[in-house]
This record gives sequence, C-alpha cells and structure tokens, in this order.
Amino acid sequence: MAQINDHYLKLKAGYLFPEIGRRVAAFAKENPAARIIRMGIGDVTEPLPAACIEAMHKAVDEMARRETFKGYGPEQGYDFLREAIAKNDFQSRGCDVSADEVFVSDGSKCDCGNILDVFGPANTIAVTDPVYPVYVDTNVMAGHTRAADERGEYGGLVYLRATAENDFTPDIPKQKVDIIYLCYPNNPTGTVATKSTLTKWVDYAKQHNAVIFFDAAYEAYISDPAIPHSIYEIPGGREVAIEFRSFSKTAGFTGTRCAFTVVPKSLKGKAADGSDVDFYRLWMRRHTTKFNGVSYIVQRGAEAVYSPAGREQTGKLVAFYLENAKLIREGLAKAGLKTYGGVNAPYVWVKTPQSATSWQFFDTLLKDANVVCTPGSGFGAAGEGYVRLSAFNGRANVEEALRRIGSMGLTSR
Amino acid sequence: MAQINDHYLKLKAGYLFPEIGRRVAAFAKENPAARIIRMGIGDVTEPLPAACIEAMHKAVDEMARRETFKGYGPEQGYDFLREAIAKNDFQSRGCDVSADEVFVSDGSKCDCGNILDVFGPANTIAVTDPVYPVYVDTNVMAGHTRAADERGEYGGLVYLRATAENDFTPDIPKQKVDIIYLCYPNNPTGTVATKSTLTKWVDYAKQHNAVIFFDAAYEAYISDPAIPHSIYEIPGGREVAIEFRSFSKTAGFTGTRCAFTVVPKSLKGKAADGSDVDFYRLWMRRHTTKFNGVSYIVQRGAEAVYSPAGREQTGKLVAFYLENAKLIREGLAKAGLKTYGGVNAPYVWVKTPQSATSWQFFDTLLKDANVVCTPGSGFGAAGEGYVRLSAFNGRANVEEALRRIGSMGLTSR
Repeated sequence: MAQINDHYLKLKAGYLFPEIGRRVAAFAKENPAARIIRMGIGDVTEPLPAACIEAMHKAVDEMARRETFKGYGPEQGYDFLREAIAKNDFQSRGCDVSADEVFVSDGSKCDCGNILDVFGPANTIAVTDPVYPVYVDTNVMAGHTRAADERGEYGGLVYLRATAENDFTPDIPKQKVDIIYLCYPNNPTGTVATKSTLTKWVDYAKQHNAVIFFDAAYEAYISDPAIPHSIYEIPGGREVAIEFRSFSKTAGFTGTRCAFTVVPKSLKGKAADGSDVDFYRLWMRRHTTKFNGVSYIVQRGAEAVYSPAGREQTGKLVAFYLENAKLIREGLAKAGLKTYGGVNAPYVWVKTPQSATSWQFFDTLLKDANVVCTPGSGFGAAGEGYVRLSAFNGRANVEEALRRIGSMGLTSR
Repeated sequence: MAQINDHYLKLKAGYLFPEIGRRVAAFAKENPAARIIRMGIGDVTEPLPAACIEAMHKAVDEMARRETFKGYGPEQGYDFLREAIAKNDFQSRGCDVSADEVFVSDGSKCDCGNILDVFGPANTIAVTDPVYPVYVDTNVMAGHTRAADERGEYGGLVYLRATAENDFTPDIPKQKVDIIYLCYPNNPTGTVATKSTLTKWVDYAKQHNAVIFFDAAYEAYISDPAIPHSIYEIPGGREVAIEFRSFSKTAGFTGTRCAFTVVPKSLKGKAADGSDVDFYRLWMRRHTTKFNGVSYIVQRGAEAVYSPAGREQTGKLVAFYLENAKLIREGLAKAGLKTYGGVNAPYVWVKTPQSATSWQFFDTLLKDANVVCTPGSGFGAAGEGYVRLSAFNGRANVEEALRRIGSMGLTSR
C-alpha cells in the first residue's frame, strides 16, 4: 500500500494563522456589529505602484500578439529581471552578486521550504525563537526533527532565544550547527541586526562550514543607513550564505507573486564521500527540474520596481507603512504598552500588559478593541507574553485601532 | 559542515533539453545561414486567447485601486477558479470532483515533483518507458532510487515498456507497486488510453492499494469521444488517483503559468503505525505551508478559459495545433516515415529510418532539413529508435519543415 510521509504527522494541528482565523470568525459571528480591524497577518493593503501596473498591461498585450508572445521562459527568470536585481539590490551596495546567481521564484515562502531539497538529512539546524513558523514546519516535513515536546519544540532543532533580555539578538551557539536561519529585519519582532552582529554569524559559519539561510524579505524597511540590507555586505558572506528576497512587502506583490533567492557560486557543502559540492549546481538542477519559471507578465511587473518611477513609488509605499509603524509604536506607548521593533521593519512587537499570555491578550484586544493581532507564542516559546502588530494597513484603520486601544485603560505594565 | 543531498549526484548530467540546446547552438554557429525550425521542446507558439487577455487586463486594473486590490489569496486558489474547474473539467463529464479537491498551482511540472513530499521513502514506484523525465528525476532527487545503470535506468524503479509491439500500452505489472505514473494523452508518444486500459489500471491500484499519478496535461487534445479525459471517469478512480492538469497546452499558458492538481478526499495511504491517512490532508498542509498561491492576475486569466468566448477561442487554438499534427503525420508518411500518435495529442512519435539511433536521426534532421526534433532515447531506453515531433508551431513552419523532410529522400523504413 502507498506509504505516507510520516513526518507530517509530527506537525502540530493548529498552524498559527488558521487558529487566528477561527477565533476571529467566532467573535464576528457572535458580534455582527463589531467593525474588526485586522492587524494580524502581515499582508499589504495599498495598491500596486503605477509603474508595475503599466508594465504588466504592456506584458499582457505582448501575450496577445504572435510576434511578441512568450512561451516557456528560463526557469531561473528572465535576464532583464535577474540583471536589474543584481545591479540594484546588490552591486549598488557593494555586494559581489552576479545576475546568474539570482533565481527568480513565485515566493520566498516556497524558496525557504524548497531550499531544503538540496541539503542532506543529517545537518544540525538552528532557528531563532520566536521564528517564522515555515522554517520549522518545512524541516519537520523533511524529517529533520523528532516529535514536538509539550512546549511545541521539535527534538533535534537548536532554538536560539531572542528576548528583551538579550535585546532580541540571540547568542552565537556554543555547539556546532550546520544550517542557521536568520531573518532580518526580523519577523516577528521587527528588530534588526547590526553589521557587527551579522559579522559574528558569518565568522561562525566560516569556522564551522555552516550555511546561513538569510531571509531579507523586509530589507526595504531599513531606514537606518548603518544597518546592512544584505548578508553579502559582510566580508565572507558569499562563502556561507543563501539570501531570500521578495517583492511582496517591497512593492505590494503578496497577491502578484514574485521573489528571488541568491545562491552564490562560492557556497559549498560536503558530499558523503567527503568532497566539496557547489550548492549552486544543485539548486540550479532543483530549480530547473521542479519549477518552470514565474509568469512573464509578473516578471515585467517586478522589473518595473527598479525603474526611476518604480523606485519612487515603492519608496513612498514603504514610507507609508513605516509611518503606520511609527504611529503604532507611539500610540501603544501612550496606551501604556512596551513595544520593540517597528523602526526598520513593518512589525511592532508588543509586551503584553500585566503578565497576560499572548493568547489572553489576543482575546482581550479582540473583545475590547475589536483589533486582531498575532499572538507571539505562535512564533515559539520565547514569543510568549508578546503579540505582533502589523503596520500593513490603511491609515484610517491604524488610527482607529490606536484610538480604541488607547481607551482600553491598559495603564499598568 | 553543511551536508548536501547526495541523491542529486546520481542524476545524469545531460538533461535532455539542455543537450538539444547545445547541439542546435553548435550547428547554428557553424551554419549561420540555416533557418532552423524547432519542433523539439513542446512549447506553444500562438498568442493567448482574447478572453484571457481581457480578463488579465481587468485584473491588473483591480490591483491598481485600493478598493479592488488583492493581497495574499488562498494558497489553494480562489474559489472562482476552483469552482470553474470542478464544474467544467470534471462535473460536466460526470466525474465526482468537488471544488475543494482542486489545488491551483503555477505548473504541473512543479506539482508532479512536489507531490512526492507527502509520500514515504519505501514506496515501489513504476514509470512507463519512454517517460517524461521529470517523473524520474524528482524520484532520484528524493532518494527513491539507487544509481543509474549503463542504460540510464535507476535501480529501484519499475519500468513499464511502451513500444510499437504493445501498441504503446504497457502491461499491468506482475509485481506489486505502490505508485504508478501514467500520462495520457502521452508525452512523448502522443498515444492515448482507452476506457478499458484505464479501468485495468484503476482495478490494479485498488487491488494493491496503490496510487496512480495521472498526468492529463494534454487532455484538451482528445478528439475521439470514446477516450476518457480524466481518470475520474473510471469507476473507483477517486479512491486511487491524483490527477495533474495544466492550462499550458490547453490555453497557451506556458509562459503565463497556471495548473492544478486534484487530490480526492477519498484517497488514503498507510502510516507507519498501520493507520489510514488521507493524502488530501497531507497535501493541504504541504500546499499551504510551502506555497503561497498563484498570481491573482493569472488566476483571472485562467478563469476566462471557461467563459463562452474562452471556450470557443481555446477550442480553435487546440484545433489549430491538431491540424498541425495531422499535417505532420501525413507529411512524414509521404516522406516514407512510420509515425504514431498525433491524433488525440500534439505529439507525433516517429520511427527512425534505417535503424538509425534517435540521436543519429536527430543529427540528420538537423543537418539535412535544419529541423530540431526530440530524440526518443532521451525519454528512456524504449524510446531508442524514435524521435518526437511537436505540433506546437506556426503553420508556415510546419509546412516548410515537412517540405524539407520530404526532399531528404528517406525512402526506406
């Protein structure tokens, strides 16, 4: 009989966002008059930049005429997009990344999971806590962990705690790990890594021949010029890191779908016979065999992000959400809450008042302010006692949510 | 040190299409005046149906206004598309498939590979020979095979031969297998399976609790009303089969990217503890964790395929390519070649003349007619002595290619 992948049975049933959905739906059913403001899932709300719209209309028209019609494109992405990415996102910041090291895809979530395909089963894997759940769940699915314990932590993974006590900057592990997931600007805490912090990670990875999975999906939100946007800004980064990027939050592409991953040719892993193998070659094979490229129309839309008009428009979009983040930080502080992040990131990480658990405060916010947040404990044990608020919203919603939270009487911390 | 997935090292270096590309590029460089006609890779050439163009323009405009903007959609696809698919592709043919069993994706190639994620490592896997190489390569990558032998066949796979001798209809295996890949209308042979043939497969799968991966990417090309379009037309199909479909060849979406996979809720596999588990539940978890949905714009384009105008336009598109296939069959017969397929499929499978090998005849066709075909041996050992010609081309190219082949003097078989 066909055998299932038993590792899937280790996954905890309640993925964070479905559980939020269930609680919100139940509340809405009982309170049909409540105008619920959703600040939970980090989804953009503002329309696509005009430059992207124009480019996609043009591309759709190209698909309508035999002379300009596009069939299968290169699985790795069209050169026009790979070159724009390499030049604008990396070379312009002094990073040695070439266009053929850029693999265009339909999403960072996909890439973060799929990258595991080219790694072996015996690697020791480190994740931060709190963490974007997809990093953990895809490792569970791939059989890289044992079962979860009562805290929801999977045996075999190394958890690196990020709390207010260590300024949300996990210590470099004392043991040897082979793969490290880092996300900066961080989801969910909204904090960033300095050049010095990233240098420590790159040095650790070099020393242990480890690979860093660097998720920079929110890099566009970095406003402090001293904060690196790419791991490749760190000397030696090319020898140790794969970087994930996305147009989702940079240009509002969450429903349009385009992202990319950089696999430097200088990144090597170990085969069972002890020889060195380029991950570049393996990922090229994976990407061309199990993927067929991103829609031509969407790639033209993404290319337009780098045009002068596109840069100006996406800059305004990012500034708009960052202003929301500032309002949230200030509004919550005024309401008596302690916050972190939200300066170089679209997320504000909020300490719950009066030692409430994350889900308790989630329920309170939903009930008393009709505001949906994301419970920090959904991102890991170290997220307990926090909630995440997203700055991806219209201005009127942000202001209304803050007005309501301000009148909740959350005076004590 | 980070360990690689060693199974990738078992893959043979020369994937079929890159090798074709290399030979064609070398020929073109030596013969700059030659006007090469490509009938190798099965990529569409005609523009998208007007209904799809119109729908995508409208969707792009929706992305430009806050009121109609779409962020993250359901990972499984929007209801409007899943319902159109369930109704038009299945329910209208009497198949019991519901909209929530349809998973919209960016490509059948991706789905065929990704589906293995939810299956365990100890399944015995059967593929036809010749076969679409992605089925085999993704199993090699997943560690389901041993190394390749001198014929290029991987240890641990069961190969089911399809040759002229058995009318390209492989025998039901005598041994027990757990997963069977079937592709009908077939790539590369262009042949089809009758209701009786498919019934034998469904009965075999029921008897052995096996799962059939049914790739119906070319079903739109079935012109004989007696030939089933879906495995779910066969009684019991829902208990044993996953079906892969695509808009690539139906509506010219190879560069636009949209496909779907049906996982019936009644399909079960075995867990290590002996219990039955629904593959539906596992695939839902895989699809929502490792994928983020198809571009809204593209999904609206796909939906338009089912509108009255879309159906008429895609019908004409398919008829156009089928007329090409007919011209190819007739032209090659006149040139003295024996052909198969090409009646209910966009591929014509051609016996090489004078016992030439596939690559010998590939080189001859390239040199003497400047026509690119696909060597049958690239699809497996049983494809040796055949080449595949694709009907995806402009009419003038097809006619010119046939004129040139006709004057090659291929008199003997």
